[in-house]
Amino acid sequence: MTINMNDMVIISVDDHITEPPDLFDKHLSPEHLATAPKFCTDENGKNYWTYQGMYMPSVGLNAVVGRPPEEYGMEPSSLEQMRKGVYDVHARIDDMNANGIAASLNFGTVAGFDGGRFHKAENKELALIHLRAYNDWHIDEWCGAYPGRFIPCGILPTWDMDATIAEIKRIAAKGCTAVALNENPTVNGLPSIHDEYWEPMWKAITDYDITMCLHIGGGNPSPHASMETPIEAWITTMPMSVAVGAADWLNLSALQRYPTMKIALSESGIGWIPYFMERADFSHARHKAWTNSAANFQGKKPSDVFRKHFMSCFIDDDFGLKNLSAFDEDMVAYECDYPHSDTLWPEVPEYLHKSVQCLTDEQVAKVTHKNAMRFFNFDPFKHYKREELTVGALRAAAAAANVDTTPKSYGGAKPLADGEEGRRVVSGDLMKMFAHHAEAQTRSAK
Amino acid sequence: MTINMNDMVIISVDDHITEPPDLFDKHLSPEHLATAPKFCTDENGKNYWTYQGMYMPSVGLNAVVGRPPEEYGMEPSSLEQMRKGVYDVHARIDDMNANGIAASLNFGTVAGFDGGRFHKAENKELALIHLRAYNDWHIDEWCGAYPGRFIPCGILPTWDMDATIAEIKRIAAKGCTAVALNENPTVNGLPSIHDEYWEPMWKAITDYDITMCLHIGGGNPSPHASMETPIEAWITTMPMSVAVGAADWLNLSALQRYPTMKIALSESGIGWIPYFMERADFSHARHKAWTNSAANFQGKKPSDVFRKHFMSCFIDDDFGLKNLSAFDEDMVAYECDYPHSDTLWPEVPEYLHKSVQCLTDEQVAKVTHKNAMRFFNFDPFKHYKREELTVGALRAAAAAANVDTTPKSYGGAKPLADGEEGRRVVSGDLMKMFAHHAEAQTRSAK
Repeated sequence: MTINMNDMVIISVDDHITEPPDLFDKHLSPEHLATAPKFCTDENGKNYWTYQGMYMPSVGLNAVVGRPPEEYGMEPSSLEQMRKGVYDVHARIDDMNANGIAASLNFGTVAGFDGGRFHKAENKELALIHLRAYNDWHIDEWCGAYPGRFIPCGILPTWDMDATIAEIKRIAAKGCTAVALNENPTVNGLPSIHDEYWEPMWKAITDYDITMCLHIGGGNPSPHASMETPIEAWITTMPMSVAVGAADWLNLSALQRYPTMKIALSESGIGWIPYFMERADFSHARHKAWTNSAANFQGKKPSDVFRKHFMSCFIDDDFGLKNLSAFDEDMVAYECDYPHSDTLWPEVPEYLHKSVQCLTDEQVAKVTHKNAMRFFNFDPFKHYKREELTVGALRAAAAAANVDTTPKSYGGAKPLADGEEGRRVVSGDLMKMFAHHAEAQTRSAK
Repeated sequence: MTINMNDMVIISVDDHITEPPDLFDKHLSPEHLATAPKFCTDENGKNYWTYQGMYMPSVGLNAVVGRPPEEYGMEPSSLEQMRKGVYDVHARIDDMNANGIAASLNFGTVAGFDGGRFHKAENKELALIHLRAYNDWHIDEWCGAYPGRFIPCGILPTWDMDATIAEIKRIAAKGCTAVALNENPTVNGLPSIHDEYWEPMWKAITDYDITMCLHIGGGNPSPHASMETPIEAWITTMPMSVAVGAADWLNLSALQRYPTMKIALSESGIGWIPYFMERADFSHARHKAWTNSAANFQGKKPSDVFRKHFMSCFIDDDFGLKNLSAFDEDMVAYECDYPHSDTLWPEVPEYLHKSVQCLTDEQVAKVTHKNAMRFFNFDPFKHYKREELTVGALRAAAAAANVDTTPKSYGGAKPLADGEEGRRVVSGDLMKMFAHHAEAQTRSAK
């Protein structure tokens, strides 16, 4: 490659929003606003949401960007314990500029990556109304504030297939080209993806050319070996836990009926995927005679089906990029994971430029932005000239706006009790921190 | 590489035995034989074992070698439904010869890969006696029948640490250089590997230079996405499910105290491992400031710890072998997985010779046999000349003995009900087949 770091254009296909308190205000009638999810603050200053009798204790969920690394394990429990870019779109643009990110696809937090909060609501009539308002906020208000800087990503009321189809049409009309889905709907009590229940959705999704984003964490678990396991073990294996869902979807017969179906494996990592594809081919070749899957794959190799339909993405993945030839090079994209603890903000360009050294200029363009643009039908260059969206230009804008990226202490719930400092943090500590946090919030909300 | 297929020497570090009915006969007093696990046959000719009120319905566990591929999904329910090499050591040697396998490390079935059956027994005094007899059978009778052709692999009574240490000494004195352990002892109700409970075992294991084999399937689960998921998805992701245990053990502080500790990830596959190592390094670098793991790794990268202590193995893994430079090339070995459905028997030499084309002759020697010999302190050349253990020589011996490798129909429990032929086999079908099979056996045994 010959491209300079400052000339790169970077699109991230996986970032997160902690929803702001006024989320629903402009998108609901007073009557429906009264029953919408509500942002609250307890007597200790902790923020939480309530909805239909449910409590969503953590408003942060690992939103630790901008802290010193010593505080990455501390869980924000109020907006004040987070960088403003986590929940404020204007500050987000500043943070994207400082990080040289031209555009970004965002998942929600209180709603769940996949809109799961609305699935858990008992009154589904209200949930549908509020879910639509959520999409209006996300598409019109958040993404709409800076056209060309965000790839809108809706959520769907998949408990009701008619409403799902209607919502696909509605958000597509707004220019939304992606939806976030739970990769394993059985965890929400819905039929598996192999059930005919989903047929109308497959049709509508492909008719309206919408990409389905399957983000880790919503459906299939990322297992902890034991509660005494050092937490880095869990962090290490989390992206690879995508494999269970990826294999499930790879065997979806609808892929054969809808050849334009597009699936993004959000936060997947890429380095393990060539092995996964080869293993899928081996499994099919060795077992198809008794699994009766030959008719499904119609002589195609599972790896070819994967390459055609699935986009994977990487944060920092030298081994995967070195083996880009094992992929369809049009199907790999960058992800920043702002504001979660894996994010390399504000140094993404430095890390990324280094790890794409092994690629050609055209390959660099593809994995940094062109693939995301094509896969998500998203064209930032309709709104900006290329030279306005380069790392150099965006960072110059951030500098002009005095965006401060100095690490700051933000506090929050601690994984270790006082007096335990220095002990290795284990899976059980995180479980306890979340359970304690949830319990405290529930008590205070009553 | 320049080596001919027929000149290769192949050692497999992962194969399986279905235990024969007379397993305990020569290794227990009449009194203890009376309470030992018992091989039974029901009125339909099905075989099962009983032990301390437990039933072990399937004597086969995917032991489908030698069948036509259409029958790979059918579960053998009697010894008659299996190739004789599965349970008879003389026939096993014939099958190894036909497949060009010089030597093999075998895991048990009724005992569990990890000896888990004895962990589940209520009377632990008897369990200890029977476990020792099991090791005597495995080491002296099975492996002892053909010195130089088997790498003995014991099991340990880890519910009792004193007995465990004693058993390590006892089997080491017999020349046993490997043990099979559950990679996640918490599933057997024991403390996690991070507990000081295990300290005496770490010491004895390294004092006696014994390799710990962690075989998939005993501890951490290999998840099914849903009961409607086509079964090939599960087959595809099974080896990668090793990652959860591998990350757990990679974070074991005992690795720092016992620099010669050796861990074999049995049935791991290899192609995903370079990504896994890079991801472990990333996780450590980004998170050590709050996880307090810096002191544990002492400035070393997790990938270096992995390369030093962990052997991984492959059945058929072009991508992994192509990227052998990402490993310590002394720490990758071949596995055959006879008699399970992934095995390439009797064509291992053909597949293997093709997939090692990208390696040097010395690398081929390492991954096919030298690494296994060093890691397991095993030297078949004490018993045979090299030229007696090549693929060509062994196959000539098999031909002289008229070993018949023609696929044969063996029957067994079917995954699909009559009338369902042609439908894709899904996870739920396998669950039902096993549950039905277990229930039938339990009824008949009462």
